[in-house]
Amino acid sequence: MPKANAFYAQSGGVTAVINASACGVIQTAREHRDQIGKVLVGHNGILGALNEELIDSSKETQRAIGGLRSTPGGAFGSCRYKLKSPEDDPREFHRLLDVFKAHNIRYFFYNGGGDSQDTANKVSQFSRKMKYPMQCIGIPKTVDNDLPLTDCCPGFGSVAKYVAVSTKEAALDVASMYATSTKVFVLEVMGRHAGWIAAASALAQQDAGDAPHIILLPEVPFRQREFLAKVKSTVKQRGYCVVVVSEGARYANGQFLGEAGGAKDAFGHAQLGGVAPTIAQMVKDKLGMKFHWAVADYLQRAARHIASATDVEQAYALGRAAVEFALDGKTAVMPTIVRTSDSPYRWKIGEAKLSRVANVEKFMPKSFISKDGFGITPRARRYLAPLIEGEDHPRYERGMPVYVSLKNQQVPKKLAVKW
Amino acid sequence: MPKANAFYAQSGGVTAVINASACGVIQTAREHRDQIGKVLVGHNGILGALNEELIDSSKETQRAIGGLRSTPGGAFGSCRYKLKSPEDDPREFHRLLDVFKAHNIRYFFYNGGGDSQDTANKVSQFSRKMKYPMQCIGIPKTVDNDLPLTDCCPGFGSVAKYVAVSTKEAALDVASMYATSTKVFVLEVMGRHAGWIAAASALAQQDAGDAPHIILLPEVPFRQREFLAKVKSTVKQRGYCVVVVSEGARYANGQFLGEAGGAKDAFGHAQLGGVAPTIAQMVKDKLGMKFHWAVADYLQRAARHIASATDVEQAYALGRAAVEFALDGKTAVMPTIVRTSDSPYRWKIGEAKLSRVANVEKFMPKSFISKDGFGITPRARRYLAPLIEGEDHPRYERGMPVYVSLKNQQVPKKLAVKW
Repeated sequence: MPKANAFYAQSGGVTAVINASACGVIQTAREHRDQIGKVLVGHNGILGALNEELIDSSKETQRAIGGLRSTPGGAFGSCRYKLKSPEDDPREFHRLLDVFKAHNIRYFFYNGGGDSQDTANKVSQFSRKMKYPMQCIGIPKTVDNDLPLTDCCPGFGSVAKYVAVSTKEAALDVASMYATSTKVFVLEVMGRHAGWIAAASALAQQDAGDAPHIILLPEVPFRQREFLAKVKSTVKQRGYCVVVVSEGARYANGQFLGEAGGAKDAFGHAQLGGVAPTIAQMVKDKLGMKFHWAVADYLQRAARHIASATDVEQAYALGRAAVEFALDGKTAVMPTIVRTSDSPYRWKIGEAKLSRVANVEKFMPKSFISKDGFGITPRARRYLAPLIEGEDHPRYERGMPVYVSLKNQQVPKKLAVKW
Repeated sequence: MPKANAFYAQSGGVTAVINASACGVIQTAREHRDQIGKVLVGHNGILGALNEELIDSSKETQRAIGGLRSTPGGAFGSCRYKLKSPEDDPREFHRLLDVFKAHNIRYFFYNGGGDSQDTANKVSQFSRKMKYPMQCIGIPKTVDNDLPLTDCCPGFGSVAKYVAVSTKEAALDVASMYATSTKVFVLEVMGRHAGWIAAASALAQQDAGDAPHIILLPEVPFRQREFLAKVKSTVKQRGYCVVVVSEGARYANGQFLGEAGGAKDAFGHAQLGGVAPTIAQMVKDKLGMKFHWAVADYLQRAARHIASATDVEQAYALGRAAVEFALDGKTAVMPTIVRTSDSPYRWKIGEAKLSRVANVEKFMPKSFISKDGFGITPRARRYLAPLIEGEDHPRYERGMPVYVSLKNQQVPKKLAVKW
């Protein structure tokens, strides 16, 4: 019997470093050719398995796989697709097993956020039920940093660095101009229901009074009166005010500030965005101050050019650990980051059960949020600061970063039935 | 009689490299202490002269002045303020001369865009008329790249690099996700009435079919039907479509796509912004496609972390040349960039009369715009490509770039009359 193959896929919103995890998985598997045959990668995440569109990573050169470490986006395609529960409708799970059997896949590596860890967990349970020997390992990934049981999530550190640097740079711009121009600048950042990304903008504060002056977190219900009073007093005191607002900021009644026509994504989550102009208009209408606003959107989570070296290293290490876990006979687990020291920052790889990770969101704890709700505490700063440390500049050619693109050659289909 | 002092000021929207020009001015003046006394810097541009708020740059260390080369924003404060014409109302000009006389200022260095070169020219004419010996030298600066007589403008190359890199990174993100998520991504960039910044996004195209697929330039009247047809065919062919739109994009009747309530800045120009959501909504309404949009706003012109080394070098060289021009006895001129070769890229410093620079906008020539109006020609690419070449990474400490902040200590006022 030939050696078992591995399946790897990227799921959910991509990041600046999800390919670094892919690099860790594939390079580590290649180091264990005695135990793992090929790493077959789902084209567009789990859809690649359902559609039997499996990319043969063995066709890629060492150089190309190495290049994944410094390439943003999802090199094999990702997806927003939630499998039906096997209890409600087991057809998708039967199909997955058919594809895995046909291609002798006995390792399942799934790289994603909370929804994706849920998928990995269900694949594990279903395989066991069907007595198909499959080792399912989740690999954490989310810029939102909202997975439980891991100190942080790959992708977050780089967005945090992007947001902190951008806030600092834009604030220097506003500080130069406020005498005759913009008084209030609003930057909208991602993070969904968790304020981690917005909170990271506080790392731009190096001296007292530095921007951002106001951070609007999803964890703190938005109170217009207090917000406007704080803008007004900041402008009075400093001449200008920089606001960083999370896309997930909401009123006490739960309504998002940026709820745009109620659009929802494939997981049924509201599509957010547009809170910066909403906030800026509020400042204009109520305080009559000149404003500018920015919405970084995908620019923030794709910004490999300003990635955190810590983040890149952890993303890679988690991909590597996933394969090592599988080789150790583990299943239904996810490697995690365990912090052992804040300063100097030290971390090691830990382990969490998928059943405990799936569908749990980790929010900013109260102890991380300042009393007035518009900033973070020293404790939060101690947590966040190490995650943006270190630079991992990509190589440049003629002024542009060198990002790899793969052949993405698929293995021949073996199943007669199409999905 | 003591040596004459120099006045320097930053005017208009700041950039990632205007401080590099300041660095060039101050360091060069310090090398010629036999001819130039102090460099007194206007706090908030020309307002600093009117208000007699003059920063004593001699109080800053060599290290701090050196750090300006890698610090974005305007370290001394800039302004949007247009002087009245001396024919209409000479009071402001008389006041300027009073301040300059009081502080023995006989060199006037003004760092800005078209409006600012007009100011520098008027100061020169007025001084001559009043028989006050003043050498007025303009130093070009504008991210919009719309000054005439210079091959390019300091600030532009770095925004161009930011926009090209960001477009490439965001496009990798969209390319990973389009199967189940965003099909159309719209990035709004600056540039006012000139399409140079939007055009620079085309440097992200390295292989055929690469993003951006559509560039909307102010120079090409927006035609909704053709635009939507191009979006539709691009999504059909490639699965997704990346659009880069200039804030100055407009309809054939001259109306801006992003005209927001008719707000105007201090120069009487319309305040632009918000065209990305307008375009995205159009795509949603007419084609029913899932979209995302980003507005980079100040992030782009402040992004010193991804500055073009070519741009930094030119900004510095123009500051240095301005002082050398003055020492050579020149006045009413501006140093320029003269390109002597595209590939390898070579440039030298040239000279233009302020009277020919002031209030002239340089747009993208027809020969730079592709036939369908949605892209650029190889000729434009040859022009743009060298301007983003080279990296000039700032120094980082604990994950953040090290940007200087100055003491900005003002010299004592000498005039009894306040402005």
